[in-house]
Amino acid sequence: MGKQYVFAFEEGNKDQRNLLGGKGANLAEMTNIGLPVPQGFTITTEVCTRYYEENKTIGADIQEQIAKNLELLEKKTGKKLGGVENPLLVSVRSGAPISMPGMMDTVLNLGLNHDTVVTVAKLTGNERFAYDSFRRFIQMFSDVVLEISKSKFDAIFDAKKKEKGYEFDYELQPEDLKLIIEDYKKLVKAEKGFDFPLDPKVQLDMAIEAVFRSWNNDRAILYRKINGISDSLGTAVNVQSMVFGNMGETSGTGVAFTRSPSDGEARIFGEFLVNAQGEDVVAGIRTPQPISELEQSFPEVYKDFMRISNILEQHYKDMQDMEFTVERGKLYMLQTRNGKRTAAAAVKIAVDMVNEGLIDKKTAVKRVDPSMIGQLLHPTFDSAELKKARKLASGLPASPGAAFGQIYFSAEDAAAANEQGQKVILVRTETSPEDLAGMVAAEGILTARGGMTSHAAVVARGMGKCCVSGCSSAVIDEEGKTVTFGSDKYKEGDFISLDGTAGDVYEGKVGTIDPELSGDFGTIMQWADEIRTLKVRTNADNPRDAAVAVKFGAEGIGLCRTEHMFFEEDRIPNVRRMILADTVEERVEALNLLLPYQKEDFKGIYKVMGELPVTIRLLDPPLHEFLPQTDEDIRHLSEQIGVPYEKLVVKTAELHEFNPMLGHRGCRLAVTYPEISEMQAEAIMMAAIEVSKETGKDIEPEIMIPLVGIESELAYVKKVVVDKVEEVMAREGKTLKYHVGTMIEIPRAALTADEIAKEAEFFSFGTNDLTQMTWGYSRDDAGKFIKEYMNKKIYEVDPFQSLDQTGVGKLVKMAVELGKQTRPDIKLGICGEHGGDPASIEFCHNAGLNYVSCSPYRVPIARLAAAQAAVK
Amino acid sequence: MGKQYVFAFEEGNKDQRNLLGGKGANLAEMTNIGLPVPQGFTITTEVCTRYYEENKTIGADIQEQIAKNLELLEKKTGKKLGGVENPLLVSVRSGAPISMPGMMDTVLNLGLNHDTVVTVAKLTGNERFAYDSFRRFIQMFSDVVLEISKSKFDAIFDAKKKEKGYEFDYELQPEDLKLIIEDYKKLVKAEKGFDFPLDPKVQLDMAIEAVFRSWNNDRAILYRKINGISDSLGTAVNVQSMVFGNMGETSGTGVAFTRSPSDGEARIFGEFLVNAQGEDVVAGIRTPQPISELEQSFPEVYKDFMRISNILEQHYKDMQDMEFTVERGKLYMLQTRNGKRTAAAAVKIAVDMVNEGLIDKKTAVKRVDPSMIGQLLHPTFDSAELKKARKLASGLPASPGAAFGQIYFSAEDAAAANEQGQKVILVRTETSPEDLAGMVAAEGILTARGGMTSHAAVVARGMGKCCVSGCSSAVIDEEGKTVTFGSDKYKEGDFISLDGTAGDVYEGKVGTIDPELSGDFGTIMQWADEIRTLKVRTNADNPRDAAVAVKFGAEGIGLCRTEHMFFEEDRIPNVRRMILADTVEERVEALNLLLPYQKEDFKGIYKVMGELPVTIRLLDPPLHEFLPQTDEDIRHLSEQIGVPYEKLVVKTAELHEFNPMLGHRGCRLAVTYPEISEMQAEAIMMAAIEVSKETGKDIEPEIMIPLVGIESELAYVKKVVVDKVEEVMAREGKTLKYHVGTMIEIPRAALTADEIAKEAEFFSFGTNDLTQMTWGYSRDDAGKFIKEYMNKKIYEVDPFQSLDQTGVGKLVKMAVELGKQTRPDIKLGICGEHGGDPASIEFCHNAGLNYVSCSPYRVPIARLAAAQAAVK
Repeated sequence: MGKQYVFAFEEGNKDQRNLLGGKGANLAEMTNIGLPVPQGFTITTEVCTRYYEENKTIGADIQEQIAKNLELLEKKTGKKLGGVENPLLVSVRSGAPISMPGMMDTVLNLGLNHDTVVTVAKLTGNERFAYDSFRRFIQMFSDVVLEISKSKFDAIFDAKKKEKGYEFDYELQPEDLKLIIEDYKKLVKAEKGFDFPLDPKVQLDMAIEAVFRSWNNDRAILYRKINGISDSLGTAVNVQSMVFGNMGETSGTGVAFTRSPSDGEARIFGEFLVNAQGEDVVAGIRTPQPISELEQSFPEVYKDFMRISNILEQHYKDMQDMEFTVERGKLYMLQTRNGKRTAAAAVKIAVDMVNEGLIDKKTAVKRVDPSMIGQLLHPTFDSAELKKARKLASGLPASPGAAFGQIYFSAEDAAAANEQGQKVILVRTETSPEDLAGMVAAEGILTARGGMTSHAAVVARGMGKCCVSGCSSAVIDEEGKTVTFGSDKYKEGDFISLDGTAGDVYEGKVGTIDPELSGDFGTIMQWADEIRTLKVRTNADNPRDAAVAVKFGAEGIGLCRTEHMFFEEDRIPNVRRMILADTVEERVEALNLLLPYQKEDFKGIYKVMGELPVTIRLLDPPLHEFLPQTDEDIRHLSEQIGVPYEKLVVKTAELHEFNPMLGHRGCRLAVTYPEISEMQAEAIMMAAIEVSKETGKDIEPEIMIPLVGIESELAYVKKVVVDKVEEVMAREGKTLKYHVGTMIEIPRAALTADEIAKEAEFFSFGTNDLTQMTWGYSRDDAGKFIKEYMNKKIYEVDPFQSLDQTGVGKLVKMAVELGKQTRPDIKLGICGEHGGDPASIEFCHNAGLNYVSCSPYRVPIARLAAAQAAVK
Repeated sequence: MGKQYVFAFEEGNKDQRNLLGGKGANLAEMTNIGLPVPQGFTITTEVCTRYYEENKTIGADIQEQIAKNLELLEKKTGKKLGGVENPLLVSVRSGAPISMPGMMDTVLNLGLNHDTVVTVAKLTGNERFAYDSFRRFIQMFSDVVLEISKSKFDAIFDAKKKEKGYEFDYELQPEDLKLIIEDYKKLVKAEKGFDFPLDPKVQLDMAIEAVFRSWNNDRAILYRKINGISDSLGTAVNVQSMVFGNMGETSGTGVAFTRSPSDGEARIFGEFLVNAQGEDVVAGIRTPQPISELEQSFPEVYKDFMRISNILEQHYKDMQDMEFTVERGKLYMLQTRNGKRTAAAAVKIAVDMVNEGLIDKKTAVKRVDPSMIGQLLHPTFDSAELKKARKLASGLPASPGAAFGQIYFSAEDAAAANEQGQKVILVRTETSPEDLAGMVAAEGILTARGGMTSHAAVVARGMGKCCVSGCSSAVIDEEGKTVTFGSDKYKEGDFISLDGTAGDVYEGKVGTIDPELSGDFGTIMQWADEIRTLKVRTNADNPRDAAVAVKFGAEGIGLCRTEHMFFEEDRIPNVRRMILADTVEERVEALNLLLPYQKEDFKGIYKVMGELPVTIRLLDPPLHEFLPQTDEDIRHLSEQIGVPYEKLVVKTAELHEFNPMLGHRGCRLAVTYPEISEMQAEAIMMAAIEVSKETGKDIEPEIMIPLVGIESELAYVKKVVVDKVEEVMAREGKTLKYHVGTMIEIPRAALTADEIAKEAEFFSFGTNDLTQMTWGYSRDDAGKFIKEYMNKKIYEVDPFQSLDQTGVGKLVKMAVELGKQTRPDIKLGICGEHGGDPASIEFCHNAGLNYVSCSPYRVPIARLAAAQAAVK
């Protein structure tokens, strides 16, 4: 008979998710392990695919299989669809391979018409129930299948209640309901031009098609886009004989979790409603009872339910999210699936289940979603205090965490207040590198402008400080030192609180709770460390960040940017002198003034990291980034360093670039100004030698040359560095091991990695730039149209969020292969922001990298993702 | 005895250039075909390599071989190095595999000392000759080997002349020369601290080493860099017994070409000096006689020389550049090599030699350097007029050709003057797209600012108009309509002349001569067309350029940019309206106004091209390029189109991009504003339909979607285009063939070309952008540091000049392979500026492309280069 497109529940099992959908597979599984499941069958996801391929029709071969299964179901239940003696009523539900709760359509009570409703009334002895079910069915079917707005039916229903002077639905009598049904049918006729279908077979056909159609309704498409679910999976359709929780006081319906999805505690968690159908629980009209009260109401059912719940958890070896119905005292299981849970619950459940012997450590590690554990790493508002807090505004959740403090409107004021011991919130229209000191001093940052990748957002994430950016309803007067939200004005020194995870701003102080990194979380992390082979380093530019990262388990620094050090207030004048130098001698003079600062920067970092590896990148950004841009700032600088204003203007214009991203930066600076690299090499080695002497530890610096495109370029700069390093070691009478490597961030470097590897002891993939160059757009400019690309479904994921494995990934794999050809023991890492993205980390693991490097607060995420990649 | 490092002349042949150097190989060849060559031996280039590898020493095994060959030479000549009875004197000359004339060192008369000089005096009966030779030898050896400045010897020599009251060198007597020699020796001792080496064996050793050292002198390194010669080739050393052209009136020396290197005529061409050594000819102190006069002076020698010259040309089958010496009436050949020649000579000689049956057509085609024939395609100044002309200034040779005209300082004035029939030179500080009409009207363009890739330069090259850019000594007052060169001021309407090939500006009218594209040139081109398999198309945006290109042999248009059409004066207001539109409706309205213009543009081009293929690229640049940038211009536009100034400022700021090269352009515009592509698709098809109807020809447009990075993006835009095309064809009741393809200019497109090819019927490699993205720098910004890279020898060639075959080429090859996997008959071309570069064209041929596309004036170059690639 060809391919099987329809499966009775007893024919399937839980491993057939892709074919039967999650719901269908679990109904089959529960049926086969002997649990009380109303009988039924599943139409596979392949039918959905064929439905769309065949111009939204269901093939005759499939229809035949559906008919056969319906017949079988009728035989097993002894009921008949449309049968007057013992009518079969069914539910028709969607069920995709990946759960998309509430996104697709469901029809209950299908099979009712003027004939069968009479029998149902008779058999149940409850005419009101029968007609109310019929009324509900018409309404639901019309909404879902015929696409007539539910509100039009509500209007009829409410009009009848009003006419009768009823307050509650249950006051409606069977006669009222019959009149409503007639009005409903008229409405359908008026809206669609045809009569409401009363033939149950027709109802079934139409409902099945409607479920397939709902796969591509707008909200389902959006949900899949947001959750990265492929459009091609399709949904299955489950046809199941109805059981009724609304057959009076011995009936009911409920949902429950085998453990708490909120904190993970091992106790049944859920709620139920007596005399109700499932939709009533979801609708929230009546307040359900906690599941524990089931024991009083239905002690036998409760006992049975606890037994089944235990069987299901033992069987699935995971916390279950169950739906059940009690029909006249008999328990039926309608659904089970792995329950969604908070990060905290996921951690606790995973650890508990290992302790209970239910799962092994590998499985436990797989059970925690790395992208969620960020929640656990930042302070949060005390929920009691939050309830009382007054929200002032919302912006973008630019950097997670919660904080309160007194507001200041300039970096200087913020830093000064912080020195006096105040907790500070820095409030700025937008931030620039010159605000760094203020950001360091602040507990949190609020900006009126700028997106998720604005300066404030990027720096705050790096520092692990909470930040709300792009809060456009905040009117900030930096001169007058006030911020206004609507009609509320706050001045310098006033308290506000920020929730960077949600993007919210609150009035006054809202108390926070610190994250707990030990306990079950620590256990999971320890297991992750045992499993993973990929090392996790951090991107850190100062001892503070380095210390945070080490606390989070970083095994080294993969990227220490040296330019951030150049921006600090006490250095920037000399940086500018260096840039404005007319001769090499002048430049060297200015660099000599910077040398002691850089050396101290590196010493601070080495002291934190001890013998863990530290990769230091030589100066990267184009020099004009260090110069003032506005006329006023240029005048100020002119006075400050005694260089004529005109000269500054000319020099600034000279350094202007059309495409700074594609300009004079990275190792190109080192080629034209080797003295900068010499100063940095000297600072790196002097610091290493001094810390080695002071601590007795072997400091082994890794010097990274950025933006290399060709071997000869790397060779040139490497020679400058190595000559200086050797000179310093000879001068200081101390020899240390050190390494020189490069970033692979230019497509050409990846393409010629075999040649580059002749000079480079290590590669660090700079996937931010590599993504920009490979796709040919800059992150600063692409924001505008990438949104449009996502909306139009041209992109499935934003390549700046998750590594583009097809394109950029091809270059990475090519570079790995070519690099190893030349230098089999080459050390390979990634230091772009993708280093903290779980999907990208899995890619890095599979590509054979040695480590990923990410911002300190993503280190635990990376450790877990690396472990999951190893398990896969 | 191991490897042979030293070859007697009779042991080698002309095919051993790499081993023996050009000179050595040809001396060997001439020796073996029985020509009178003074005997000697060659030390191979491998010795040079070993010399540098072994810390600048010559291995004992090599020294032994040199000694053996010297012994052999002494035996054959019957002379002995340092022998008092019959002393052997030798020359020691460099000779690299590729000729580097004058770049490396030579020592003549080696073997002279106080003993041998006496014998030479005796044997020649010419004491003055002998001591003058000794004097010259000390001076040359000291200069070349000991590195003592020649001027110090000249000072001694001149002092002696002055002391004696002599006017001419030849007045110096043997006794004077002996005193000079003593002073020379004292100078050497004072400078070096050791005595001048008088042992001829020591002299020889030192001279050989000096030649190897000279391989890496500064001027040799520079020459290799400029000429793209590898540093690793090394030089050979030729040790040859001396013959003397300065042994009196029956001796002499000369250089000659077998045909004219200037115009290619088949007559001997050269000059000689009686009683002189080779260096005297080069030094230019005495004026040599034309070679024809040799017949009178030395009829026997002349006859012999003509015979040998004929033998050499027949033997080498190419025009020869020969050096010879006559010693006491006997002719010696000292060198022969293929002669350098002008483009015109190369063409004539190649055609003549085919006609003479000396070479075949393939060889003829190989003999003309494609990079030189640009000379033949542009007007040049009449040389007689040029001699009388007064040069005013020099700038950059931005676009070749010569022109005179009356100067105008704005596009409007230039266009108006041209309409009145004037020949116009447009003089601007710099040009922008708004000057286009003035550039079209002008014979040539002069700008004070801007480099070789400035707007003026790029557009002028495209139009084939001469242009001198970056002429910083021209002080231009655009308001006052004057240009000042030093103290000379010129006003509107004055004549100047421009030489865009040399970059010079002349006063007044200098007459020009038009290029000759028929005759021998036409013949070579025809042969090239017979041989090549690669098609040659052109980049042309208007009927005028298209017509020029067809005249030059273009076989289609590979790139028709549509944005140039947007800049024209009558369209730009509507382009701006379109950009500033707030709604899709407003935008469509503005686009509808542009549609007729675009349609006419395309019709004009189709009419010129007939059934030749035309690839039209959809709008590419970011929209802000079309908006005014200065405050004044924004105010002007505001008045012009009636949009408030403030709105324009906001919109301009909104469209601002940090990295326009990596911004919202190419197909990204088509994704966000599909209506632009719809208008263009409509214009393309309407034009094709109308021209098809009018001319009866089958117009088959190729629509090219730029800047694609992912298949889904191309699919989206293609659908927009195809839907519109089909709609237009249905509406017009006419069906045409058409093709939709894409540019491969984003690295990701090359990496995923197999996927892209599912949607693209053709690929056109946009190697300008591909080079920028692959290397990670923009051409606008890289100028500054690429120079430094060339200077520091980090780059051998500028990747914007010649395709980077290792990096960018790898992407091209990958895309070709992947594209063909998906679509075996995919059409492949290149339309970046590399399409006109001979080395890049060879790469394209080898990579399996179907065509190259270049600017009209490079079409003949491309045809020739394509033929040469096919021959190789």
